[in-house]
Amino acid sequence: MTRFVCFGEILLRLTAPGRGLLLQSQQLDTHFGGAEANVAVSLARFGHAAAVVSTLPDNTIGHAARDAIRAQGVDTSGIRFTPGRMGIYFLTPGAGLRPSDVLYDRADSAFARAPGVRDWSAALNGADWLHVSGVTPAVSKAGADAALAAMKAARAAGVKVSYDANFRAKLWQARGDDPRPTLDALMAEADLAFAEARDFALISGKRFETSTDAIAAAFERYPNLSRIAHTVRTPHSSDANDLGAYMHTRSGHFRSQTIAITGIVDRIGGGDAFAAGVLHGLAQGFAEESVLEFALAAACLKHFMPGDFNLVSEEDVRFFIANPKADVRR
Amino acid sequence: MTRFVCFGEILLRLTAPGRGLLLQSQQLDTHFGGAEANVAVSLARFGHAAAVVSTLPDNTIGHAARDAIRAQGVDTSGIRFTPGRMGIYFLTPGAGLRPSDVLYDRADSAFARAPGVRDWSAALNGADWLHVSGVTPAVSKAGADAALAAMKAARAAGVKVSYDANFRAKLWQARGDDPRPTLDALMAEADLAFAEARDFALISGKRFETSTDAIAAAFERYPNLSRIAHTVRTPHSSDANDLGAYMHTRSGHFRSQTIAITGIVDRIGGGDAFAAGVLHGLAQGFAEESVLEFALAAACLKHFMPGDFNLVSEEDVRFFIANPKADVRR
Amino acid sequence: MTRFVCFGEILLRLTAPGRGLLLQSQQLDTHFGGAEANVAVSLARFGHAAAVVSTLPDNTIGHAARDAIRAQGVDTSGIRFTPGRMGIYFLTPGAGLRPSDVLYDRADSAFARAPGVRDWSAALNGADWLHVSGVTPAVSKAGADAALAAMKAARAAGVKVSYDANFRAKLWQARGDDPRPTLDALMAEADLAFAEARDFALISGKRFETSTDAIAAAFERYPNLSRIAHTVRTPHSSDANDLGAYMHTRSGHFRSQTIAITGIVDRIGGGDAFAAGVLHGLAQGFAEESVLEFALAAACLKHFMPGDFNLVSEEDVRFFIANPKADVRR
Amino acid sequence: MTRFVCFGEILLRLTAPGRGLLLQSQQLDTHFGGAEANVAVSLARFGHAAAVVSTLPDNTIGHAARDAIRAQGVDTSGIRFTPGRMGIYFLTPGAGLRPSDVLYDRADSAFARAPGVRDWSAALNGADWLHVSGVTPAVSKAGADAALAAMKAARAAGVKVSYDANFRAKLWQARGDDPRPTLDALMAEADLAFAEARDFALISGKRFETSTDAIAAAFERYPNLSRIAHTVRTPHSSDANDLGAYMHTRSGHFRSQTIAITGIVDRIGGGDAFAAGVLHGLAQGFAEESVLEFALAAACLKHFMPGDFNLVSEEDVRFFIANPKADVRR
Amino acid sequence: MTRFVCFGEILLRLTAPGRGLLLQSQQLDTHFGGAEANVAVSLARFGHAAAVVSTLPDNTIGHAARDAIRAQGVDTSGIRFTPGRMGIYFLTPGAGLRPSDVLYDRADSAFARAPGVRDWSAALNGADWLHVSGVTPAVSKAGADAALAAMKAARAAGVKVSYDANFRAKLWQARGDDPRPTLDALMAEADLAFAEARDFALISGKRFETSTDAIAAAFERYPNLSRIAHTVRTPHSSDANDLGAYMHTRSGHFRSQTIAITGIVDRIGGGDAFAAGVLHGLAQGFAEESVLEFALAAACLKHFMPGDFNLVSEEDVRFFIANPKADVRR
Amino acid sequence: MTRFVCFGEILLRLTAPGRGLLLQSQQLDTHFGGAEANVAVSLARFGHAAAVVSTLPDNTIGHAARDAIRAQGVDTSGIRFTPGRMGIYFLTPGAGLRPSDVLYDRADSAFARAPGVRDWSAALNGADWLHVSGVTPAVSKAGADAALAAMKAARAAGVKVSYDANFRAKLWQARGDDPRPTLDALMAEADLAFAEARDFALISGKRFETSTDAIAAAFERYPNLSRIAHTVRTPHSSDANDLGAYMHTRSGHFRSQTIAITGIVDRIGGGDAFAAGVLHGLAQGFAEESVLEFALAAACLKHFMPGDFNLVSEEDVRFFIANPKADVRR
Repeated sequence: MTRFVCFGEILLRLTAPGRGLLLQSQQLDTHFGGAEANVAVSLARFGHAAAVVSTLPDNTIGHAARDAIRAQGVDTSGIRFTPGRMGIYFLTPGAGLRPSDVLYDRADSAFARAPGVRDWSAALNGADWLHVSGVTPAVSKAGADAALAAMKAARAAGVKVSYDANFRAKLWQARGDDPRPTLDALMAEADLAFAEARDFALISGKRFETSTDAIAAAFERYPNLSRIAHTVRTPHSSDANDLGAYMHTRSGHFRSQTIAITGIVDRIGGGDAFAAGVLHGLAQGFAEESVLEFALAAACLKHFMPGDFNLVSEEDVRFFIANPKADVRR
Repeated sequence: MTRFVCFGEILLRLTAPGRGLLLQSQQLDTHFGGAEANVAVSLARFGHAAAVVSTLPDNTIGHAARDAIRAQGVDTSGIRFTPGRMGIYFLTPGAGLRPSDVLYDRADSAFARAPGVRDWSAALNGADWLHVSGVTPAVSKAGADAALAAMKAARAAGVKVSYDANFRAKLWQARGDDPRPTLDALMAEADLAFAEARDFALISGKRFETSTDAIAAAFERYPNLSRIAHTVRTPHSSDANDLGAYMHTRSGHFRSQTIAITGIVDRIGGGDAFAAGVLHGLAQGFAEESVLEFALAAACLKHFMPGDFNLVSEEDVRFFIANPKADVRR
Repeated sequence: MTRFVCFGEILLRLTAPGRGLLLQSQQLDTHFGGAEANVAVSLARFGHAAAVVSTLPDNTIGHAARDAIRAQGVDTSGIRFTPGRMGIYFLTPGAGLRPSDVLYDRADSAFARAPGVRDWSAALNGADWLHVSGVTPAVSKAGADAALAAMKAARAAGVKVSYDANFRAKLWQARGDDPRPTLDALMAEADLAFAEARDFALISGKRFETSTDAIAAAFERYPNLSRIAHTVRTPHSSDANDLGAYMHTRSGHFRSQTIAITGIVDRIGGGDAFAAGVLHGLAQGFAEESVLEFALAAACLKHFMPGDFNLVSEEDVRFFIANPKADVRR
Repeated sequence: MTRFVCFGEILLRLTAPGRGLLLQSQQLDTHFGGAEANVAVSLARFGHAAAVVSTLPDNTIGHAARDAIRAQGVDTSGIRFTPGRMGIYFLTPGAGLRPSDVLYDRADSAFARAPGVRDWSAALNGADWLHVSGVTPAVSKAGADAALAAMKAARAAGVKVSYDANFRAKLWQARGDDPRPTLDALMAEADLAFAEARDFALISGKRFETSTDAIAAAFERYPNLSRIAHTVRTPHSSDANDLGAYMHTRSGHFRSQTIAITGIVDRIGGGDAFAAGVLHGLAQGFAEESVLEFALAAACLKHFMPGDFNLVSEEDVRFFIANPKADVRR
Repeated sequence: MTRFVCFGEILLRLTAPGRGLLLQSQQLDTHFGGAEANVAVSLARFGHAAAVVSTLPDNTIGHAARDAIRAQGVDTSGIRFTPGRMGIYFLTPGAGLRPSDVLYDRADSAFARAPGVRDWSAALNGADWLHVSGVTPAVSKAGADAALAAMKAARAAGVKVSYDANFRAKLWQARGDDPRPTLDALMAEADLAFAEARDFALISGKRFETSTDAIAAAFERYPNLSRIAHTVRTPHSSDANDLGAYMHTRSGHFRSQTIAITGIVDRIGGGDAFAAGVLHGLAQGFAEESVLEFALAAACLKHFMPGDFNLVSEEDVRFFIANPKADVRR
Repeated sequence: MTRFVCFGEILLRLTAPGRGLLLQSQQLDTHFGGAEANVAVSLARFGHAAAVVSTLPDNTIGHAARDAIRAQGVDTSGIRFTPGRMGIYFLTPGAGLRPSDVLYDRADSAFARAPGVRDWSAALNGADWLHVSGVTPAVSKAGADAALAAMKAARAAGVKVSYDANFRAKLWQARGDDPRPTLDALMAEADLAFAEARDFALISGKRFETSTDAIAAAFERYPNLSRIAHTVRTPHSSDANDLGAYMHTRSGHFRSQTIAITGIVDRIGGGDAFAAGVLHGLAQGFAEESVLEFALAAACLKHFMPGDFNLVSEEDVRFFIANPKADVRR
């Protein structure tokens, strides 16, 4: 059992039910999620001690968000409750050739105003890993400061740092700030980055001939960085995507098979499921290839359940790897 | 057919379904409403030409709000669409001795930022009545300015002004402004006010010995005011309230019977249903007692359908007055 | 076990769900029912051999109607399937002071066109009772002829005739025929009539001073009639009615207690539940007072379940009589 | 903004929910639709002034049909309300290899009895286009007369006539009339026809060697006709169809690509979406190829939302053309 | 019309709704089913006289199970009601690459304790066929005894015996008994077996080189056996399977085409639908190839409706054979 | 913050939705609950450290039960997972005069087989209170042994013992054991008992003239007992009960007001809500009258939310005491 601390915002997702358009029916389905909370939930499901550090509004909705996460076995004692509003997003799930659509209503949330904690060393006490994503610096200046403070505190305390680049152009545009110095500073603190060539191109402002060049440049620029992983997704329709994955270390490059994902139920959280799969594999000391295979399988399974959370156990992932054709289990 | 223009914010209401708590189940029911839009819908249902002037976010939610209102036959050509967010409120309907609970998330909405229209004389062209409520000045300084501008423009154009005091302490607190000068200025423009003694006490900062004194003082202070009406509600539980109504003119005072409302489905919008009933009675030239009886009956019926809108026709209201025991209609 | 044949139309009921108005939400709940089928279902639940004779459209809806009735243990082998349409009605259940509303769409149904059977003696073979209602003659001329033919055939075969007057003014208006000769002829064939003073006044065109006079006149005019029963309902709201019952024989008059029915779920079928209760009591040889008490209790219980059918056993009715305060059964 | 008048019947559709059979569950989903109303809704969504001329029953259901259409921004002032019944159809959506099934219950509807308007020139005042379909003449003799009268009035007033052949064998069989003279007369008034070779074969009673021959013969026989368009659908299962489209003018023939539509949600209304797409393209003056591409894309998108209406904007259609792989929009 | 008696347990199935995980939402969908009851329902739908012999708990759930089956036209007079519990299973339907999952909670059910009837000759009176499955002997020792007694009684009475091997390893493990002698004894009584090579391998403890060898050995060992049939399923995902079928007689071997089943709604009961299709074909005297084609088509259609029952008529199956591309039926 | 350990079984409740009968619709609502878990949840909501010690089946259902409880902030680390089945009960909520009905299916559950823990002193480490109920000894002999062992261990460790008598006749009958010696032994270990005169009469086999005599006798027989509390419920219908409460100490007797509870949503768990209210009051050191007032108010509020858990905070209870008429909170 490894100890993970995940820092980031938890959002209320309001989803159009069935296969209808937003507000076409008079109901909305509710879920809670957020890039970092999703990783924490998945890690708890895999048997680890996972904690979320976040800020939620001190009202029924904020409390319900906390309840949804601690239901999954995540330690929520690091969540602060402050006055303010809950970050919301409206999701219209796609169907066939109609794309999914996300409408954000997260500005000025309780988290965006006051994302961090005063004493990071206390919050990270006993942790093996800190996980942060690029969403938090995009939310607000305070978010950027808090993310950096958390990562530096982790590094100071010998806690390994996992960082999911997760670039959100719309949020940065709304902030009206140049994301590059911030993202560069954050990447510099990471041991493990979930990022791909275009992320490094964006941060550095450089064009790379090949993906390999970008990865090489990243390892050169960020000496703390020992590992880069990412998925490659090819959408065919809202119901069918191909998904593969890459892992880069300073000593080698690994590529998974590509899985044809058809009959998608809900792809939100697929990237977070992958990140959790990688962290689990590393925590368990799997071989590189096995880390990648496990993380990709975990990411695939996420597509077949509603909500942001990947509600699978390690045994479920292993069963899928062994039985990829989905025959009835009875 | 009388022509009414109703100016105010339209909100998205997210309601806990059944008789459960907010987010106890994973669904929310959606409705659109707002004090002034509710009045417009009811007036359209009564056969009048009712228009809403408002601002909505230029996204799927704002468009759906517009659609919900024009479905009821209200003219929505006076709605502007701007970038921004939709004002939201979360409703946990009460049950038995558990009270209903309202959680606002309406700060910084598209309407609050840019509530008004540039050319009020165009917006009011052909109108017989303008209806405004005290919610709008409470929403933002811009709201207060727009409400006053609309009322002055109406008065200048010979359009009668209906004003529902609807005092919202929480919103004024959030604005951090003294509501009294604003509310006083607005009341000064009204021909018809939906208000009671405590509203006049609040605006004037005076204590009145009796309700009659308050009404008398109001008629003295506000020379444009020719009529004051309000309901009196006595709650027994979330399912059972008593409801009566008063009408005051410069020449007389009228009091309705009290109706025991049991088996309440949804009391939101009851006051707006009353206001629409009064406006309809005045537009039709009913006798004072009949105006009051009609408006109270309309307000009662509102309690027995979900959502903010009073989806009844004049014929439905008359049927209820004649058959108050609710035997099956077949 | 007594053998009952019930002849009449089965309708598809489309009901507004929850406590909303018709088509306010985008769903309708479906039930099947009909005065005579409801009686048959209740009698089958009480342990009797009950059969329905009817005509249904030979399509998915007609087949589903048959399935719904045979699920309850009713013999449906006497149902004919012909081309045509299903009779429908839309129900908006009332709530509080808002009345329930019924919208019929049953004209020209498969049953209305071809209601009867060719060989009534075969259809009644082995039966102890035939049950018919006044709805059938109101549906169409063919319905009136078939009802009379059925009753005459029963009388000829020594099968007792139960007749529920169930006057439907709207249907007779639509038919544009004088209902009196038909209803008079039908009443003349009945052994047991579910009817009250106003039914006899309507048929005879006479005004009776008292209810007793009407009953006395009925027993005089209809020599076959040995028993008259009916409920008395006093509505207070859609949720609360008082219900009592009367039974008249040539030798005596019986009156039940009055039960305050609050928290009504669905009152459709209450009268049919009463009729089935009386028929069960007579079939079992209960004392007059017990017949009335049982039938009233059965009718009360019907109000507390959705749909037209009274899905209670004799044991449920007895439990209610013994425990009228509805404490938890565990 | 072009002005369109669409004349035809609006139906209540009652749909089996989920992927179940009709009446397998106890709920039905409701939608309103109709070939011509669907076109009007789509055109209003594209920004045009679209009006529906129709007849609806003067009851809750008819009013709800009106509300559903005006919610979409369609002018419904040309709808008459008369006594009578609503035309209904029951839809069991297909799933996989099980086909969708339509059960009509529309005979003798308010529209079928009294479809037209007295003063067509008033109804068409200011219009650029009249849109009519072959469903209306199939509904009743009165429907046939009204459709022809409308088209002649349009032609007389210089309003262009769009006519969707939409042959309905079952309805014509029920009418027991030879459809050919009527359909021939209607086609003679059309400027734009949505029809394919088999429609022209049916009307003329001729066999054509090739589709090209049929089109050529049509242009010869109908001098008013300047444009013929139609889709070609190849079903593989209820979930997967291929869809392509053709456009013929007197000067050229155009064929679209074929789109593989998988993950179908609801294909009802796909043809109407195509018609609206063509009309929009013509109104906007698109090049022929672009008209066809736009109309086919619009028709495709319709398959991915529940109900008859194509609830997409021009921007949605353009986005789909540019991004046909349905990646998440966020 | 052929008379079938089907003997086996009826279970309550509790299904996770939508495409979610078990208990992820707060609802469960309910269905009743069971290998033999499913066959009976399908045969009744095909027009035969089908009866179920079973034991159910004498409570609301047991009665509802009976009602669900007799709704389909099955004779349920052979069902006994005893004290005890209902056998339950929880189903999490698969989606995409996530497999369906079955969780049994059927131990110690009313049926497992007291499965049989005292007088099999009475229960089989007038029957043409008895249908039994290998689930019953796996449930309990009493089940094994009852299955054998039923089959022997049938053989003695000249009733043909149909036996679906349906091996359930988990149940046998729970019983802790060697299944082989029991299954061997049961197979010895069968005229028609639904079984494949691996079933015969399991019973005999032998390895067969080829499927043909296994079939040949079976015909040799079981002289009563005149026919063996089975499907071959190749899963690709929870949504897509290939399905083919084989039929073996002592004089020939038949193989169907393979059907690609995509868009699966619910595959539970597919094997029972095949068995019913074979029994129907044999009862109707179809040619061998037609029996197989019909049974495979029936099995395919089952995949496209929720629940265990194959709610199709012979006409539906024939329509599918003639129109396998699922175009809309209207 | 006081530390409570609650020991008992957690059940899956399957509830008929809406106001229908069990299995009348095809859905069931799911909740988890159990007398002791309900107390733990309420105490956690009041801000205490509450832990549940229990046994659950090691499958999806058992894990979901754990998740539901830890969502509420209860420490579930003391729950063991073993092979076996989940205890279930089916609830048909009453409506009006129709009573609620409970159908148990809990025999032979994982808890009933192996209820306790090996090392009670570890399980109780740091606890201030142990809470046990009379349900556990009724479930199985192992349950009785475990309950007594837990209470003795608590007493030995200086942990106060709360015991809710909760007599379940049906379960004891099923066990076929004399409950008296067991219940007597358990009561002897209690510091605080939730019990009333009839409980003491049952245990002792004596008849008491008055309730006061019974209480006095109990205090005499059980020297450890320092406090007895209970509610008094008078049902009027399924929707309306009166509820009052008593508290007895060795030095005084206290009686609350009686509250008329109308519009009941779900009364399951009302007694557990009362127990938690008393424990909270004692933990906070409230005056006796305030303990009783608080506990009764908490119990009342429980009736107005679905499920077994009392999802209210101390602030909600205080608000209700101050505002018992349930006016809207906004």
